[in-house]
Amino acid sequence: MPEAVLLHPAIDKGFQPGADDFAGGTLVCHCLDRPVKVEVKGQIAHNHACGCTQCWKPEGAILSIVAVAPTDHVTVVANADKLAVVNPAATILCHACTVCGVHMKGPVEKDHAFRGLTFLHPELSREEGWQAPQFGAFISSVIEGGVKPDRMDGIRARLRQLGLRPYDCLSPTLMDALSIFAARKSGVLKD
Amino acid sequence: MPEAVLLHPAIDKGFQPGADDFAGGTLVCHCLDRPVKVEVKGQIAHNHACGCTQCWKPEGAILSIVAVAPTDHVTVVANADKLAVVNPAATILCHACTVCGVHMKGPVEKDHAFRGLTFLHPELSREEGWQAPQFGAFISSVIEGGVKPDRMDGIRARLRQLGLRPYDCLSPTLMDALSIFAARKSGVLKD
Repeated sequence: MPEAVLLHPAIDKGFQPGADDFAGGTLVCHCLDRPVKVEVKGQIAHNHACGCTQCWKPEGAILSIVAVAPTDHVTVVANADKLAVVNPAATILCHACTVCGVHMKGPVEKDHAFRGLTFLHPELSREEGWQAPQFGAFISSVIEGGVKPDRMDGIRARLRQLGLRPYDCLSPTLMDALSIFAARKSGVLKD
Repeated sequence: MPEAVLLHPAIDKGFQPGADDFAGGTLVCHCLDRPVKVEVKGQIAHNHACGCTQCWKPEGAILSIVAVAPTDHVTVVANADKLAVVNPAATILCHACTVCGVHMKGPVEKDHAFRGLTFLHPELSREEGWQAPQFGAFISSVIEGGVKPDRMDGIRARLRQLGLRPYDCLSPTLMDALSIFAARKSGVLKD
């Protein structure tokens, strides 16, 4: 039997569908002392496994699990003083806990198709019912994170087996959203 | 019956597989007077339908058909004086005919995974036997070229029907090649 391809502990054994009436939950960083807490009101969207080198992921994971929520549904409710922005020039302003390093929220504030959304990692919450992962994004980028190229076929096959279609950019829906934004900005698309 | 989705005249009625022993051919621009001619020795690779806004495409086409050949297999053999580089800052240095506007060759010369390859449009040749298109790239970008977003499902479905898997970036093989290049450059991948 071939060795199992481990991607991320939240999906390696399969996962449950989200709950339709999910009310939200609280993300908690990894600190035992004064953990940062972020309250998320309601359900997340576009939850996915991501291979990019910017997303936070737990030790040993190849992919991160990341989703978005409307920024006004996301509130830091404890120990906000421990948060700092990883890279103020990035599109996603990842706010990391300066002690444990976990990324707690990543709002998009600049003029962008995703402005008004905040990226977050649902695995940081104990609540159950978050939207399940829907697809895999930026999969080829795991090579830039140190994964050997000859593992790529196995990684993409395992994602498909889990029902997560692997993309090397975002999903078609999100890529179309980016192009729609660009087309409106350039004036090509008027509506 | 739904209206046919027209993508590019070279694929709209289907296409033939390439010839294994193909010796190459000559690309000719659209000028009747002093056409630019580019000789391509041997077969092309990674031939695909492309939705980006930079590629040259014939009037009315939504996608371009573009492939690569090793740069040292590509030689301008007539009326080179009519060629000019469209954008010297671009990765692909598209050389266009300054009279008819057709892109005749696009070498990659900068430090890049595709350095040493030249992008070209096999439809500009009368020879038969060029590698058939293999996939669709940058499909979401057609929106930035003026295609209405509500046509995207039909466009992706038609590509699949033609056996061309639609991607919103390049194919996994080429995306992995880009990541391998980046990983070697950063030192993450040593081999």
